[in-house]
Amino acid sequence: MEDLFVIKIGGNIIDDDEKLSSFLRSFSSVRSHKILVHGGGKLATRIAGKLGVSQQLIEGRRITDAETLKIVTMVYAGLVNKNIVAQLQAKGCNAIGMCGADANIISAHKRVHDTVEYGFVGDIDGVDAPRLRQFIKDGLTPVIAPITSDKEGQLLNTNADTIAQEIAKAMSSYYHVQLIYSFEKSGVLLDASDDTTVISLINKKEYAALKQENKIFAGMVPKIDNAFIALDSGVKKVIIGRAEELDNLINNSAGTIITHE
Amino acid sequence: MEDLFVIKIGGNIIDDDEKLSSFLRSFSSVRSHKILVHGGGKLATRIAGKLGVSQQLIEGRRITDAETLKIVTMVYAGLVNKNIVAQLQAKGCNAIGMCGADANIISAHKRVHDTVEYGFVGDIDGVDAPRLRQFIKDGLTPVIAPITSDKEGQLLNTNADTIAQEIAKAMSSYYHVQLIYSFEKSGVLLDASDDTTVISLINKKEYAALKQENKIFAGMVPKIDNAFIALDSGVKKVIIGRAEELDNLINNSAGTIITHE
Repeated sequence: MEDLFVIKIGGNIIDDDEKLSSFLRSFSSVRSHKILVHGGGKLATRIAGKLGVSQQLIEGRRITDAETLKIVTMVYAGLVNKNIVAQLQAKGCNAIGMCGADANIISAHKRVHDTVEYGFVGDIDGVDAPRLRQFIKDGLTPVIAPITSDKEGQLLNTNADTIAQEIAKAMSSYYHVQLIYSFEKSGVLLDASDDTTVISLINKKEYAALKQENKIFAGMVPKIDNAFIALDSGVKKVIIGRAEELDNLINNSAGTIITHE
Repeated sequence: MEDLFVIKIGGNIIDDDEKLSSFLRSFSSVRSHKILVHGGGKLATRIAGKLGVSQQLIEGRRITDAETLKIVTMVYAGLVNKNIVAQLQAKGCNAIGMCGADANIISAHKRVHDTVEYGFVGDIDGVDAPRLRQFIKDGLTPVIAPITSDKEGQLLNTNADTIAQEIAKAMSSYYHVQLIYSFEKSGVLLDASDDTTVISLINKKEYAALKQENKIFAGMVPKIDNAFIALDSGVKKVIIGRAEELDNLINNSAGTIITHE
């Protein structure tokens, strides 16, 4: 099986032109097959503010009313996605920007929740892995914005971490997949305030021990739990680390590697 | 050669949810191969107004400063494009939304003009017809937003009529191409104020006569001139007419048909 890197890039890099450009230079030089999944950054919130659309977050998730959906569709699938694609093209990477609706690569439904009305938020039903594989075979690099749609044509705001995870899982039928979450921290830290305390390798046994000793920063727990779910579904390795160090994350000399062994 | 319809949809339909939905129903039921090119409508101007970005038009073309470019990228390649794609998916048409930067399907450069500084406006260098053909062979229907990029990764605002024309010309190597401009009028009119005076067929000889008698509404002249350029480059037929009558434009029972004979 050939290698495939599914790389999620976090919001704060997208808000910084220089860091984004540097990240995209590293990304375009990755010689294996690759898919980029991006978040939206704070731009959507800024534009919502200017347009007078108030924003509400519950447990870190944006409540997406009709006006907010328009803004995130504009910013994520329009401005951010096309800027990334144009920059990658200029760096010799034949990128194709998409959201989940395009070629129906991600099917989703509107979230149903007992107590919280999330609004137009999507939960993923499936990923069309054969289609994404066809694009890769045709020499294209998919760049995915975190917007999906349901069967009725309703666009839905969808968590980018989850999209990266679902794509990585689905593509594991065809490739040796490594899933990279690149963000502003150096990896999973023993001390959340000290960037030099990166745990370089986590397996299930060690994770259980670290959790028992309360050594995992609470915010990282869902990310690591999801990583193990991805590993259980065929993903070979999950890597968490700093976006500026993408080269080193790829060659396993930086960040936290999460594996079964 | 198989048939391919390249269909441009004008701005005023995009601004009207009901008309757009009805148009997309007709579009999705076209059984031949098809490509949709859309404009942006007045939404970009409305959002620019709300964001306090003033808009300037010279000869009907928007002067695109950096802030305006962000807005048209958001609105055209984001909101409008993804809404159309999601609706087509719901109607059983496997649409894939793209701008010119995606898969580098349209290469362009920033317009250079002796006296007018248009800003970030693109003029087209070429269309990757083999790539578009591959998408069509793979069962996809391209939906193109009027944004392109140059070799340096700069996004550029680009005229949708011109994009439709260049795509139609380029695809003529592979398909029997008919180019449809659908908008708010019934076709080319003898009397601009009377929608029943549609000229049903225009060839070069008749066009020369009509122009000599001053019977062509000035605003239509560039559209018809461009139609003949497209015909000279291999396009079989150019059809101009009302978006609500797409079915009839396709079966040649409405609108103005422009051909060589």
